[in-house]
Amino acid sequence: MKRKFFVTVTALLAASVMLTAQNPTLETIFSRKSVRTYTDQPVSVDDLMMLVRAGMAAPTGMNRQPWEFFIVQDKALMASLSEKIPYARMLKEAQAAIVVIGNPEKSVYWYLDCSAAAQNILLAAESMGLGAVWTAGYPYEDRMETIAKAVGIPKPYLPLCLIPIGYPKGEQKPKDKWVESKVHLNTW
Amino acid sequence: MKRKFFVTVTALLAASVMLTAQNPTLETIFSRKSVRTYTDQPVSVDDLMMLVRAGMAAPTGMNRQPWEFFIVQDKALMASLSEKIPYARMLKEAQAAIVVIGNPEKSVYWYLDCSAAAQNILLAAESMGLGAVWTAGYPYEDRMETIAKAVGIPKPYLPLCLIPIGYPKGEQKPKDKWVESKVHLNTW
Repeated sequence: MKRKFFVTVTALLAASVMLTAQNPTLETIFSRKSVRTYTDQPVSVDDLMMLVRAGMAAPTGMNRQPWEFFIVQDKALMASLSEKIPYARMLKEAQAAIVVIGNPEKSVYWYLDCSAAAQNILLAAESMGLGAVWTAGYPYEDRMETIAKAVGIPKPYLPLCLIPIGYPKGEQKPKDKWVESKVHLNTW
Repeated sequence: MKRKFFVTVTALLAASVMLTAQNPTLETIFSRKSVRTYTDQPVSVDDLMMLVRAGMAAPTGMNRQPWEFFIVQDKALMASLSEKIPYARMLKEAQAAIVVIGNPEKSVYWYLDCSAAAQNILLAAESMGLGAVWTAGYPYEDRMETIAKAVGIPKPYLPLCLIPIGYPKGEQKPKDKWVESKVHLNTW
């Protein structure tokens, strides 16, 4: 029984290694990591627009697309935000930031659609050699207010997250989050 | 002025076409669509496990990983769910389904982390030639209860969404959701 399990797991691992080797999207998904240190290399507006374009390709409930995207390039503004928002120190070093913003009047679950958009942006960044990290706005009232005020987001829009962008400094490895006991195949 | 704008837009478009041509991850992001009709071709357990593995590679707030994944292969169960859940008719045809499940005791914003995981699954499916679509559980109490009861999800876990999986039947095109006025470059 133990041996059979071992063989199955080995076969699955071998299959997964083969599949990712031939599938650059899976490779990006598995190599994406939260990057919090960046070099001085600027990030072009074309690249920032491409990241937003990737965000806007996410699915949305009822196709309501309840989102807006704010690109910040002002370094003084990013430095000031880095002091005010918890866990956002890395903003001071970033070359730019993208704020993923929802419109609660267009959809009551805008934050789910915007999360899918944010994940697209993180994956697009990884695939383009850029580093990025999800910094929470929603659901924290104070952080949302700080971001909205500093950046100039009008009502009723709400910032889901703020994503600093830059070229990664140093080598950062993705976390291995695979936990087999969290997969339930046909039965809990 | 108009000419300059036109040249800029054309240059951006050209850049985006070039970039996606060289970047298979962006290609997947832009070609992903909601697939609601499937062929009779079975989907292997290896492929289903790979989709879940992709889901588990998403980022989570404070690295809490407040998720579980349920793979459904029982066709009778999927047919029964297709009758009970709104907008889930396509489940009857699907070869399998993945339920993305959150643990609200591990994180109060489990649904954001689980949304990122769901998006990873949708992109992984697209990249593997599979079709999938996000079917809402959360935030609808009744749908969450229906899914949890039918599949056998214990408390306190909550289903974010149910993702039918199969090989796409017919040609389905991605929606073009690009709206330039939703991008705010340095100013709203």
